[in-house]
Amino acid sequence: MKSYLTPLGSKADKDTVRRHNLSLVLRAVRDEGEAGEATRAGVSARVGLTRAAVSSLVEQLLDSGFVTESGKTFSGQAGRPGTALKVARTGPAGLGVEINIDYVSVCVVDLAGTGRVRQTEHLDNRGAPPGEVLARAAGIAARTLDSAREQDLCPVGTALALPGLVSGGSVRQAPNLGWNQVAAEDLFGEALAGLRPGTAALPVRSENEANLAALAELWFGGLGTVRSFLYLTGEIGVGGALVLDGELLRGAHGFAGEIGHVVVDPAGPECRCGSRGCLEQYAGQSALLRAAGIGEGAGGAAGVMELERRAQAGDPVALAAVADAGRMLGQVLSGAVNLFDPDAVVLGGIYRGLMPWLAPPADEELTGRVVSGLWSRGGGRLRASSVAGDAARGAAALVVQDVLADPVAYSRSVPAGL
Amino acid sequence: MKSYLTPLGSKADKDTVRRHNLSLVLRAVRDEGEAGEATRAGVSARVGLTRAAVSSLVEQLLDSGFVTESGKTFSGQAGRPGTALKVARTGPAGLGVEINIDYVSVCVVDLAGTGRVRQTEHLDNRGAPPGEVLARAAGIAARTLDSAREQDLCPVGTALALPGLVSGGSVRQAPNLGWNQVAAEDLFGEALAGLRPGTAALPVRSENEANLAALAELWFGGLGTVRSFLYLTGEIGVGGALVLDGELLRGAHGFAGEIGHVVVDPAGPECRCGSRGCLEQYAGQSALLRAAGIGEGAGGAAGVMELERRAQAGDPVALAAVADAGRMLGQVLSGAVNLFDPDAVVLGGIYRGLMPWLAPPADEELTGRVVSGLWSRGGGRLRASSVAGDAARGAAALVVQDVLADPVAYSRSVPAGL
Repeated sequence: MKSYLTPLGSKADKDTVRRHNLSLVLRAVRDEGEAGEATRAGVSARVGLTRAAVSSLVEQLLDSGFVTESGKTFSGQAGRPGTALKVARTGPAGLGVEINIDYVSVCVVDLAGTGRVRQTEHLDNRGAPPGEVLARAAGIAARTLDSAREQDLCPVGTALALPGLVSGGSVRQAPNLGWNQVAAEDLFGEALAGLRPGTAALPVRSENEANLAALAELWFGGLGTVRSFLYLTGEIGVGGALVLDGELLRGAHGFAGEIGHVVVDPAGPECRCGSRGCLEQYAGQSALLRAAGIGEGAGGAAGVMELERRAQAGDPVALAAVADAGRMLGQVLSGAVNLFDPDAVVLGGIYRGLMPWLAPPADEELTGRVVSGLWSRGGGRLRASSVAGDAARGAAALVVQDVLADPVAYSRSVPAGL
Repeated sequence: MKSYLTPLGSKADKDTVRRHNLSLVLRAVRDEGEAGEATRAGVSARVGLTRAAVSSLVEQLLDSGFVTESGKTFSGQAGRPGTALKVARTGPAGLGVEINIDYVSVCVVDLAGTGRVRQTEHLDNRGAPPGEVLARAAGIAARTLDSAREQDLCPVGTALALPGLVSGGSVRQAPNLGWNQVAAEDLFGEALAGLRPGTAALPVRSENEANLAALAELWFGGLGTVRSFLYLTGEIGVGGALVLDGELLRGAHGFAGEIGHVVVDPAGPECRCGSRGCLEQYAGQSALLRAAGIGEGAGGAAGVMELERRAQAGDPVALAAVADAGRMLGQVLSGAVNLFDPDAVVLGGIYRGLMPWLAPPADEELTGRVVSGLWSRGGGRLRASSVAGDAARGAAALVVQDVLADPVAYSRSVPAGL
């Protein structure tokens, strides 16, 4: 029966408290700004620090370029008019790089979380040497950085979104890319530094792409009050992520959420992961296109568009393929819901556009199989992801979150010139 | 991108701080006592409060009967010899009541977490009116309380362990009991107060039985450094619980962990939950006994003992039945492990005694189907629950945890006479 609480009033040195409070004030400026107009008084009321303390902290944030100040605001309250504060739209930013099976997407997000630059290239990364794929991604990132610089944005960190098991800076396994034990962070960082020497000191982190897409959905999507959800991203692989109470559930080793490899039929077709009959073999992009009679020739994005077109036109083969995938998804999802009890299931990737035909059979399975009875058909607990949430933006926003959590750690990363 | 931290140095009034610190000191006395001998100096070093503060808090805990003091201890350190402190072995205690399909088990646990009184009765609760079952359980609890009183133990709260979906004081659904929307806490509390009027003010809480068995395993079992695990309890129903980083994962509505209703075969036999082909229909007690050719006449506990005996004797029908159940368990568990990424899977209930025959086929499925490759056969990640951990003890310990978390709230529940 262990588990200690930190004693209230445990010692924290002055420097730690100030760093913590700088973060608190910076995030309050952002949130007050989203709700209307941020003032020192509003920030003070929100965070519970005195106005004098807030003013001093705001000065430091203005000096370091994290916050900007605009004209006077008349809030209707008594006393002197305040000055409106905003998180800076230039300066520190996050760089997100999603490397997926058939595309690379790079995104720069500013401190407010807004996507400011985006570059996506469709290319087949299957079977290519990992170093080559990461070098290509670094090339796209370098060009994106150039565009960001034109907008006076200066990424202070990079996050990689990768379709596989990611831990300790490496891709442990990415079956659909054919990667095993790839030191992705180092390889990417070196390739980028080779192209843009100024980025040599930029910290690089990495994370499973479905996890980052789920965070993007949480932060930027239309989930409203939903804070616990299961996120599925249908691509060539089927990725998944669990968010509980606004926190990503990473598991004991960082490998949680692999719903694509939940077994549907133990004797089913071989999967690239080494198992048989995984969900991916029935509801992944390749399986879906094949079942719909759309050849591999049509390629990824083109094939999915063709599938949507045929479903829209009432093509019975396409409709049956999507309905079958929906039923399989619903069966696996009902198990996941019974285990994890989320408030919603969000379907992203190729599933988003297929929702009109995919959702009804999936809903039917959920209604019949979820023990709690909370998942009645049409209850809106199964929903399409918003377009705003994708892994590259989630990755960039994760960097921004690091900055917001400790601006002091990043205050020297922003060149004085910017 | 919401999520606030409490400001360090946010105001907490003196009373709150003292209550918090009383809890801190009480838990430190318990933990230091487990490791050797608790002294004021040792507690002070552990919690980071001054010796003067600790002495004052200890006085209050001695006065309220939460802590006792014994002879002098010579720790070898310089200075005056200290006095050994212990959490009280009399006085405040927790009452745990597990109501399962074919038994009721009641347990009283003292502040140190030790089970002190236990009473178990085997009876068939299926189909009986819920009020009657709860009244019977209250009768057993009343007799257990009498025994506890003889040991000078005074339960200050009750927790019910129930085999179903539990939330807001009610059993929402317990398919194997045939319960729907049963106000279990109220019904039990009233029945117990009718038998022992002194208990009328005793707070009653309730929780899913697998959740409480998992907590008992965490607190009293042999898990070592494992803090994230999936717990399965095989009874007539197959219950489950998820513990992540030492915390129970309850889900958005408190219904997480229902692994017994993960679908194995969508067209399989009907389940009491309303779905078809749930794991429970293949690996639950009734299914196992039936597959082994052991008639319902043998009854629950007797049937399982007979099954173990036959497996031990090499009976091919019994061995095949257990191996099939093991494979099914392994398939469902591999999905759960892919989703949740725990460090271990713990099998309790009837599975514990069947491990020699159940574990190898289950391990084989896990080895072949868990994407992370961390689950190689024989790696010891699949393990039997310890005998020390059961739902009734977990329930009683949950009450004790409440007491330890805020002793002040319970200091008036202990009659002066005890």
